[in-house]
Amino acid sequence: MLHHAKPLARLIGELGKLPGIGPKSAQRMAYHILRSSASDVQALAEALLEVKERIRFCAECFNFSEEETCSVCRDPRRNAHVVCVVAEPRDIMAIERTQEYRGLYHVLQGLVSPRDGIMPEMLRVRELLQRIATRGIEEVIVATNPTVEGDTTALYLAKLLKPVGVRVTLLAHGLPVGAELDYADPATLSSALQYRREL
Amino acid sequence: MLHHAKPLARLIGELGKLPGIGPKSAQRMAYHILRSSASDVQALAEALLEVKERIRFCAECFNFSEEETCSVCRDPRRNAHVVCVVAEPRDIMAIERTQEYRGLYHVLQGLVSPRDGIMPEMLRVRELLQRIATRGIEEVIVATNPTVEGDTTALYLAKLLKPVGVRVTLLAHGLPVGAELDYADPATLSSALQYRREL
Repeated sequence: MLHHAKPLARLIGELGKLPGIGPKSAQRMAYHILRSSASDVQALAEALLEVKERIRFCAECFNFSEEETCSVCRDPRRNAHVVCVVAEPRDIMAIERTQEYRGLYHVLQGLVSPRDGIMPEMLRVRELLQRIATRGIEEVIVATNPTVEGDTTALYLAKLLKPVGVRVTLLAHGLPVGAELDYADPATLSSALQYRREL
Repeated sequence: MLHHAKPLARLIGELGKLPGIGPKSAQRMAYHILRSSASDVQALAEALLEVKERIRFCAECFNFSEEETCSVCRDPRRNAHVVCVVAEPRDIMAIERTQEYRGLYHVLQGLVSPRDGIMPEMLRVRELLQRIATRGIEEVIVATNPTVEGDTTALYLAKLLKPVGVRVTLLAHGLPVGAELDYADPATLSSALQYRREL
């Protein structure tokens, strides 16, 4: 049986670690790369290294950022009294696409999932409490996926934040259960934002 | 509207050039890369550069190779009197998976497609004729995809090679029409090889 040349096998292995890329797609991508010009491949390799070098987490909200704090946190036109809590930075992009929301964000960097051993202490919950305590935040909109993990996280946050005296709201269940926020169309997300309810 | 930080937008753009990767998948992959360790990203970038540096085309059959000629062409146990003609190197891997074929290969690096302006002169046809003339080849198995382009190429080669006095055969049409060789299961490909017919 013929095997891939070692550098090719190595590349297929590395590509296969990317999300949603099975061995077959990895092979297709590797063959495509072999047919691409050296400068195109160089550009991709550089983009990979550059993104890791230049992008870090915002010290305020844990969104991705090129600076100490991200462009949302630095924007004086945003309403700093409302914070929308999301699991991942990509959820911020989804909500921004609705052009409906003008507050700030807080990225938990995950969702509570006892099944996977992910407990609240492993998320950016302490930092959220800190922001609420020091930044004059009046409302926290919990915008987690309508899944088991998302709902668990939302309930946990509601219980935790109610005694603090902050208003806690939840995205309206216009989203089909089991859906991923990141794939929702702007209109659905807009109405989910609009009809958010008190927890 | 919020935009991605520039290095992130650049990476998403570069990833989006890969085959089968839309903007959404590119974004998912980029976010995954941002969450990955620096050493994992380094490994991927290096694999990309290494593959372009170390892999070239076999001087005999135009398969990918780390050496002047590929491991199939160098293997003295292979039957050098039979050559299987394929469009792309990935088709070689598909046929090797059947463990049925012990001859050599010839990679055309494409298929004849007048619609896309791809004419036989742009493929490795001259080199195939050269091999037949000088290497004692007795049979040419044309193993192109059962598509319009694949069939056009097969007919073209049959017409071209018949006068040369070489036996020209075609993979049996056990493959569903419109299918891609690269995705065929080994059993289907095995029988297609076994029942190959004279053109």
